Amino acid sequence: MKKSSWECLESKEVFRATNGKTVFIDMYQDKVRTPKGKILTYIRYLASDVVIVVPFLGREKLLMIRQYRYPIGKVLLEFPAGHVDSGEDPLDTAKRELEEETGYAAKKIEYVYSYHPSVRRTKQTVHVFKASGLAKNTATRHDSGEQISMTTVTAAKLRQLITNRKVENAGTLIAYLLCCTMKINLGNRR
Amino acid sequence: MKKSSWECLESKEVFRATNGKTVFIDMYQDKVRTPKGKILTYIRYLASDVVIVVPFLGREKLLMIRQYRYPIGKVLLEFPAGHVDSGEDPLDTAKRELEEETGYAAKKIEYVYSYHPSVRRTKQTVHVFKASGLAKNTATRHDSGEQISMTTVTAAKLRQLITNRKVENAGTLIAYLLCCTMKINLGNRR
Repeated sequence: MKKSSWECLESKEVFRATNGKTVFIDMYQDKVRTPKGKILTYIRYLASDVVIVVPFLGREKLLMIRQYRYPIGKVLLEFPAGHVDSGEDPLDTAKRELEEETGYAAKKIEYVYSYHPSVRRTKQTVHVFKASGLAKNTATRHDSGEQISMTTVTAAKLRQLITNRKVENAGTLIAYLLCCTMKINLGNRR
Repeated sequence: MKKSSWECLESKEVFRATNGKTVFIDMYQDKVRTPKGKILTYIRYLASDVVIVVPFLGREKLLMIRQYRYPIGKVLLEFPAGHVDSGEDPLDTAKRELEEETGYAAKKIEYVYSYHPSVRRTKQTVHVFKASGLAKNTATRHDSGEQISMTTVTAAKLRQLITNRKVENAGTLIAYLLCCTMKINLGNRR
């Protein structure tokens, strides 16, 4: 079998930002050797994994948030999401973020999919969950850097927004397409 | 109207990697003030935009690549993609990357969608294009750090791979779902 993996000859941490429970970014400059023997410098980073929750209020209505995103400079329509804390099970993150960002608790949370948002730079993984059986539970508890308002959108309206290219967040696009368009089989594999 | 944007009080470049035509990563640590007056430190980065091309060989067969991704440590099934060079029109990037990575030229390339892969950290944008009327044109020309082989996959097979959670690259997922599942209207708006 042809060897495909690259050999890391040297790894230098060039920048790190973390608060203890979340790794915002931990960047490395690696010296690597490819199977053909070429020596390259490669920039990669570590970052805490992320969960996205698609919360169904009944069969067709979705709970969403409008959130200001500083790097983009505008408010985006998104599904609730957040970082998996160090040592946390992503399923627990999904429950926690749903409650924190919307004030709703879910009777049922199902694993949908995992993917890598930026394969060029990081093995960071995003886990998508579907939430149902929602009940208003608590007040929202936003982190200091979050600027969020809640809204509801029907699946049909969200489809129309995507058709008009109005949904700009990759995770929200993937989560909608997997949960509402493909209706991918749900399960516990991960 | 409620003011939503954050004010940047200070911006410090903490790391940069570029080769002149592509910005791999250009990272900043900003001091920002939210509309509520809170002062935060925010990590963001700039990176060259990316195009993804969904190349149709006829109506149902798709041209794909298997590419080793060093940060993930494995070979992923993906659509051809690459960075938009400084000053380049993304449509030209789409033509160029399709030829470089597959050796095929397309009679027709249509704009599909633009999204942000990582809204927490960067305004980097990914542009999705659909290519059709393909003809084998030239040999492939891979960059030194690319380890790529070409393959063809039917849309039905790719759907099955996604159902089995085998497609891990966010861009490839989005491009398939938009071009093959939603069949979003194509146009020149961007």
